[in-house]
Amino acid sequence: MKKRKEPYILVTNDDGIDSPGIFALVHALKKLGKVVVAAPDRQQSAVGHALTVSKPLRAISFHRNGEMFGYAINGTPSDSVKLAVSTLLEEKPDLVVSGINHGQNTSINILYSGTVSAATEGMLIGIPSIAVSLASYSLGADCSAAADISVEVSKKVIKNGLPKDTLLNINIPALPKNKIKGIRITRQSDSQWNDHYEKRIDPFGRNYYWFSGEYKVIDKDIETDDAALLAGYVSITPIQFKFTNNDAIAKMKFLEKRK
Amino acid sequence: MKKRKEPYILVTNDDGIDSPGIFALVHALKKLGKVVVAAPDRQQSAVGHALTVSKPLRAISFHRNGEMFGYAINGTPSDSVKLAVSTLLEEKPDLVVSGINHGQNTSINILYSGTVSAATEGMLIGIPSIAVSLASYSLGADCSAAADISVEVSKKVIKNGLPKDTLLNINIPALPKNKIKGIRITRQSDSQWNDHYEKRIDPFGRNYYWFSGEYKVIDKDIETDDAALLAGYVSITPIQFKFTNNDAIAKMKFLEKRK
Repeated sequence: MKKRKEPYILVTNDDGIDSPGIFALVHALKKLGKVVVAAPDRQQSAVGHALTVSKPLRAISFHRNGEMFGYAINGTPSDSVKLAVSTLLEEKPDLVVSGINHGQNTSINILYSGTVSAATEGMLIGIPSIAVSLASYSLGADCSAAADISVEVSKKVIKNGLPKDTLLNINIPALPKNKIKGIRITRQSDSQWNDHYEKRIDPFGRNYYWFSGEYKVIDKDIETDDAALLAGYVSITPIQFKFTNNDAIAKMKFLEKRK
Repeated sequence: MKKRKEPYILVTNDDGIDSPGIFALVHALKKLGKVVVAAPDRQQSAVGHALTVSKPLRAISFHRNGEMFGYAINGTPSDSVKLAVSTLLEEKPDLVVSGINHGQNTSINILYSGTVSAATEGMLIGIPSIAVSLASYSLGADCSAAADISVEVSKKVIKNGLPKDTLLNINIPALPKNKIKGIRITRQSDSQWNDHYEKRIDPFGRNYYWFSGEYKVIDKDIETDDAALLAGYVSITPIQFKFTNNDAIAKMKFLEKRK
């Protein structure tokens, strides 16, 4: 009988390889199998799906508590997954887990999220992939419930796989585990940022602008990511990157022309 | 009778404010109305939907041929549109046009495209927005046909508007105008990158990795962006950013839990 090997899991993030979130995640996932880490060497929030194409990448061994923790990459979350799977790792992982991000990635934030982009690269390579975010921007937030839930979902995903071209976007409320009400499969909500730029003047009299904004949850439907999270549930949204607005195709036919 | 004012058009790109593509576009769009430019101060390809949130932005007046050409922003295409509309411009534009990009943005490239991301920001702010890319990576490519087509489509979009939460992703073959076969409304194709990293060794004996890859057009259906482009048509895909895979929701219900 062929011996079933233990799962091989690639972990990455966008907060950087030295963040508390990735440490908690790696520690917890070791219960499930062999874990390898490849993550940006510094904070990469809001980089979206950026790829580094105009400068070379490097992968440095990063140590934590005297042990090799993983590869620190001088690039984006997407770079980290691409470089790891194509070049650094000896075999294709069974699962990519990106996180635990410090801050939620719901609604339109998916577009800007480095955490989700890393899982997207895993999915595009054909590996079941999940993105995990904790709804707290504090680097001191307790990641233990989020880590436990990541293990629980990872185990089921390794066993059952995921639908084609689809990854799981998981958002976890910043609550102690016994206060979390459960897990819901949700839709992406239509919440929005009300953003603006604060204009300031530097010591030389020149203008500069700081990005700022408030996040507005509009959609109160419990079947959406933001509402489920606010109600104390873990939100899991199956997401894909199919951009065509099929309903709009017929409406735009008036632009067509043939010679 | 109220006098109808001329359209106010914001132009941006991801190749940088000094690229030939944006110059050709601005020159052509001046036939339609008042044009204002806010674009990255340097090349920003493959930045995706990245936003600059950890450092301040600046907007410098950029001159071309002795005239004020536009605002050069030390950020991404998304930053440029957000900062321009919220802060730099006196009124909300009637249209955002991003381009003319040197290189096509079809299929999965939409995810990584700074050109598309700029139009996405316009769309998210509620402005009809289009992204224009020319299927040639050469900075010396003739942009005149692409500029003419941009004007033609822009005029119709200003008149008719666009479907809600939708932008137009326009790709133009690198052909003289009389060789272009027409305009097709298309779907995003499923083409893919076969990417890899070339490993090299620096003068100090350390490894570094260059991203590289070939683009593979799999989908030959003329109703898709890549195939239409290859056949000599302008491809216009109405795109949106709704990530939920609705078909997968039922399949993932086994992950749900309630207390």
